[in-house]
Amino acid sequence: MYSSAVKNLLAVLERLPGVGPKTAERFVLHFLKTGKGEVARLQMALEELSQKVKSCAVCQNFAEASPCEICADQKRDHRQIAVVAEPQDVAAIEHSGEFHGVYHILRGVLNPLEGIGPEQIKIAELLDRVRRATAAGEPIQEIILALNPDIEGEATMNFLNRELAAPDAAEPRGVKVTRLAKGLPMGSDIEYADDATLASAFKGRREI
Amino acid sequence: MYSSAVKNLLAVLERLPGVGPKTAERFVLHFLKTGKGEVARLQMALEELSQKVKSCAVCQNFAEASPCEICADQKRDHRQIAVVAEPQDVAAIEHSGEFHGVYHILRGVLNPLEGIGPEQIKIAELLDRVRRATAAGEPIQEIILALNPDIEGEATMNFLNRELAAPDAAEPRGVKVTRLAKGLPMGSDIEYADDATLASAFKGRREI
Repeated sequence: MYSSAVKNLLAVLERLPGVGPKTAERFVLHFLKTGKGEVARLQMALEELSQKVKSCAVCQNFAEASPCEICADQKRDHRQIAVVAEPQDVAAIEHSGEFHGVYHILRGVLNPLEGIGPEQIKIAELLDRVRRATAAGEPIQEIILALNPDIEGEATMNFLNRELAAPDAAEPRGVKVTRLAKGLPMGSDIEYADDATLASAFKGRREI
Repeated sequence: MYSSAVKNLLAVLERLPGVGPKTAERFVLHFLKTGKGEVARLQMALEELSQKVKSCAVCQNFAEASPCEICADQKRDHRQIAVVAEPQDVAAIEHSGEFHGVYHILRGVLNPLEGIGPEQIKIAELLDRVRRATAAGEPIQEIILALNPDIEGEATMNFLNRELAAPDAAEPRGVKVTRLAKGLPMGSDIEYADDATLASAFKGRREI
């Protein structure tokens, strides 16, 4: 039905996350309708992306410089590392304005069923970063595990906690490992909260 | 939060239909994760698209050749034209296997609120096509208005029917204008059918 040029583009677009055949079709028709200007703009933006964006060697985030802006910022607290799964999480946490330390992006979470073990995500880089900070006489004071409270996230946090407890047999544990509070989200309704969230909210209750 | 290269790409991606900031973010992260190979493949596919795909001068569909494959196919019935709004509709009708004529793609429907009048869509091209077929001694026998049975589609079908009735004051009406049947869709449930559909199904009932 479609010409080979359209089919090729459809095949590439369908590999985008959450894009199926119908959505890919709509995208192609958008490009065809809006004409060459829009296609050229996308091509240029892609070119710029692949030329400029690389990984920050410190926190593993995508950035135009290494170290990235956050890692190079001396006003931030470099003794506090928030460990997150994906770059999007950094954006969300920055947006909340609550955290002033630095980040470490794992680029995923442990998921044995999908073949993602400790070697597939940036765990060695985190342990190495903690060790190097200690060796440089500026030890990390707190590692905040800011992963999603789901099965894979919990398993990854358990694994990291064990690894950070004994990053090296010779080294005593010097770093405090914390995790984000679990409880009722703001604006939610107790009536509709799920059991696990409600149980977490009870366990984590605080005096007011 | 994001580097300028990422922001530029986000801005372009957010112009895609149905893509908001979060989806655009996911797309960019997909490109960053999969690396330069995937970006290069998309760039090449876009390049191919803008190089090869043009409009068919006959049916106004997007195609690599003009006339397109369907318009050039002598095994199809060129005296029967299905008028559709968008190229996707051609794909759906072809897939049904029910129609063996040729198409005319309006590239939209009348929508005065959005400033889309008869000049903004390919109505003049359709009337011209009908006139030229008559002049060439191979008059069109049937024009099937295959537009969506919604407000804009109905208005466009009414307009086309009037225009086709008098394509030229001097010329008698030679072409039969039909529209697709309205009724219950296959596999649907009368209990949940809306009033307008049910009314159409009653009006259009056939002896069995």
